[in-house]
This record gives sequence, structure tokens and C-alpha cells, in this order.
Amino acid sequence: MAIAYPQFFKPKKVEPSLMVSVSSVNLSQDELKKVAAYKAVEFVESGMVVGLGTGSTAKHAVDKIAELLHTGKLKNIIGIPTSKITHEQAVSLGIPLSDLNKHPIVDLSIDGADEVDQEMNLVKGRGGSLLREKMVEAASKKFIVIVDESKLVNYLGGSGLAMPVEIVPFCWEFTLKRLEMLFIEAGCVGKLRTVGEDGEAYVTDNGNYIIDLYFKKDMGDLKAASDAILRLAGVVEHGMFIDMATTVIVAGKLGVSVTNKE
Amino acid sequence: MAIAYPQFFKPKKVEPSLMVSVSSVNLSQDELKKVAAYKAVEFVESGMVVGLGTGSTAKHAVDKIAELLHTGKLKNIIGIPTSKITHEQAVSLGIPLSDLNKHPIVDLSIDGADEVDQEMNLVKGRGGSLLREKMVEAASKKFIVIVDESKLVNYLGGSGLAMPVEIVPFCWEFTLKRLEMLFIEAGCVGKLRTVGEDGEAYVTDNGNYIIDLYFKKDMGDLKAASDAILRLAGVVEHGMFIDMATTVIVAGKLGVSVTNKE
Repeated sequence: MAIAYPQFFKPKKVEPSLMVSVSSVNLSQDELKKVAAYKAVEFVESGMVVGLGTGSTAKHAVDKIAELLHTGKLKNIIGIPTSKITHEQAVSLGIPLSDLNKHPIVDLSIDGADEVDQEMNLVKGRGGSLLREKMVEAASKKFIVIVDESKLVNYLGGSGLAMPVEIVPFCWEFTLKRLEMLFIEAGCVGKLRTVGEDGEAYVTDNGNYIIDLYFKKDMGDLKAASDAILRLAGVVEHGMFIDMATTVIVAGKLGVSVTNKE
Repeated sequence: MAIAYPQFFKPKKVEPSLMVSVSSVNLSQDELKKVAAYKAVEFVESGMVVGLGTGSTAKHAVDKIAELLHTGKLKNIIGIPTSKITHEQAVSLGIPLSDLNKHPIVDLSIDGADEVDQEMNLVKGRGGSLLREKMVEAASKKFIVIVDESKLVNYLGGSGLAMPVEIVPFCWEFTLKRLEMLFIEAGCVGKLRTVGEDGEAYVTDNGNYIIDLYFKKDMGDLKAASDAILRLAGVVEHGMFIDMATTVIVAGKLGVSVTNKE
């Protein structure tokens, strides 16, 4: 069958054996997320230390891992959760858990993403857990990203949705302005992430704030952009995951594809 | 008169008019700090927005600024404190204060340092306020560093004392190991900063921990080292202040020198 990639998504290596046709049914976005998640869990082997992602797509993978543990198809899995919410989910499902202190090397992480470009660079963190996700996934030998096809973009920021930056609360307005100035040529506008009707600042698991950056154009060289953001005192981490994904699984109306980094 | 620089400290530009002999008296280290601090305050002019540093040397500068405000020799100063403790000191002395949100451009900052190399790069943060200091001082048109001569080093880390790194508490042992691995060739050893006899973790103004790094050799290219540290997810900021000081004032047994960056 033909592969259902959008024109601009040019995977470098596809394993045809891992493509599955789901074109005969009309799946919802959540069902597509589930298809991608379940496909990723096929890569989990007994005895592995597994990074457990956060968000609506990763949640399905965590559910599936728990199911396979309970049926005995997987054994001796140790999960490393990437957020408090995933920690709670995994505990409620009975997945044995540990952390990076005890397991500094993770065999495989599975997580969603908000954007995936054609080089398999990601934007993550709209769920607010970018820092712990990046710590766990940077410590992983393999990192499988699971998305539905709506997450594929021409360039990071290209969905028109946010690229989040975690910052210390101290003088956050000042840091917001400095971030906007960094990307003034890309038409960058920053907004403090808030919760509820009172507009209270959203607080991350680490006690920090999130600035959501919106871009009109691409931000140029991503590694240079990353370093420039990190050099700002007051910035803790950003949501670009550059050169980290080793596999991207995309579920679309016409099928699911598995693309490995060359 | 001859200048009292140690052999390895080769200032690029010295203003002879600003050298003062204090050789006729035998000053304590604290008195030397005071000499450097008072010299720096001579650069403060009425109407300036002034970054107020943190630590035993900067404290003298804040005291002096308050004194000049009370005697009317300085007017309309707005102080931007670099820590909660300096904020309290300045409030108790009646110095009008603001922050970077309202005053994103600071005319002049005055602060101490733990180490100064011959390129005027600094290690700061043994007092624990490195992040707020770096935010304020990076926003300053001029940044005067005030030290006694014991702070001059051949290379950053060369005093054998700590180069601090502020990190998120989450999985700090893991981050500590990753920091050590970055500088394994420089014989780097990291230690969590603690307080009291129970060995409880020291917590910064921003709710983070401090890892103190100790080096056996120099860490090579400082800008590359800085970027490598900042790229580690879990790191918030480090204590190297590279290319930030515009003036260094050194008080020694044989005199006080004022060196401007070329």
C-alpha cells in the first residue's frame, strides 16, 4: 500500500513490515493516538527500563503496558514516569516504578509530541511536563515518538500553536520580553500560561512558570535557537527536542507508519 | 607607584588616576572588601538604576549607597536587588527599590565574585544567588566587580573552591552525575550543597538545589563549557559569568586597582 505521509514529511527509513492499514475504518483522533501508542508498545520487551510519557497519546501506551504486564505477556518492566500525573496513572495500574537516580540509563521511552518536523525534531510540553520528559528521554537508548498525523509540521512552531519555555517565576515578564526579542525576526509573541478564569499562572511540577511562544515564521537554525534560549538567565528548559527521537510512529486515516532515524 | 597585580593578572586597561595606595596600613580581608566596594560606589551617579549585588563584599557597597542617599550626595537612585537578603538589607536602609519587570535596563550593577580570571570572567554563586545576580547583571549597561586580591585565579575553578550550578531538585543525583561526566577530563567532582548538621539540601531563592563542582584542571573553552552545562535538562543556571564584567576593582595589600574591559 502507499504510505500516507503528507508531502513534506519525508522519512529517511521506513520499515514496510511495520505499516498497518487502518484505512477501512474511520478513526477519531483519539483512536489514531491509540493506534500509534499500541504500535509503540510492540517495541517494549520484558526486562526493560521504560520511560513513560505524559499526555493524551502516551496515556494509551501506559495503559497498554499495564495490560501486557497483567496478562503476563510482559515481565519485569520498570517504568520511569515523566510527570506526577503519569506517576499516578502508573501507580494506579500497578506498573513497578523507579527513577533516573536508580536507573540513569533508560532502555526505551515512549511519548507523544505536539509537533514533529521532517527531521524528527519535536515540540513538546503543551502538557507542561517538558523538563522531566526531556530528562528521561535524553537518558534513553531509544525514544519512540507517537503522534497522530495532525502533529506533522513543516517547521517547529509551524502549527501556529505554542512552543513552551519553562522559566523561573522571578521577574517572568522580563524573561518573556527577552524571549520575544530573541526571535523578533520570526514574529515571536510570548504569553504566560495560565489556569482558570482568574488568569493565575500555571505552575509546573518543578514550581516554575511556562511561557508559550508563538511564531509567524520559522526560527532558523534550531540548535542555535536552542542555545540562545538556554543562555537566558531565568530560562530553565524549552520544549524543542532536537535530535532526540529515534523512531516516529504516525497514525493517520490511511495507516500507521514507523520511521527510524538513520 | 607600582601596581599590585599578581603575576598572572594582566589587566588590559588600567586607569592610573583610579589607583589608590593603601599600603601604609595592614588591612584585613573585610577591610579590603570595603575598599573595593567604596571605590565602586564612586561610579554611581544620581538618577541611576543600580543593580545591588549579594555577599560580604557587595554588602559594603549597598551600605555606602544608602549612606550617600541619606547625606544627599546621591539622589533618585533606584536599586534592583539580586537576592532576597539584599532586598531586605536595602529595605532596612531605606533605598528605593524596583525590579527588572519595571526597569529592564539597569545602568550599573555592583557585585562581588568568588573568582576572577585574567579575561575578567567570573565564578559567582557561592552565596547561592547566582541566578538572580546573572539576570540583573546581564541586563546592566555596566557591571563593576569588586573583589579582594584573594579572588584572582589563573583559570575559573582554579581556586579549588566550588563552581556552583543551580539545578531542579527532581532527580538531582542523576543531574550531578551528568555534570561530573561532562568534565571528566578536568577531574570534576560534584557535591550537593547542604545546610546544617542534618545535611539537608540548601534551597535557593527560586526553590532549586545547588551542585558545587570542583575541578582538578581547567575546563577548557569556557563558552563551550557553559553551553554544555546549560544543555543538560535539569540545569537552571551556572555560576560562570563569561564576558559580563565591564570593570573589575581589586583591593590588595598594596593598593586598589580599577580595570576596564577593552
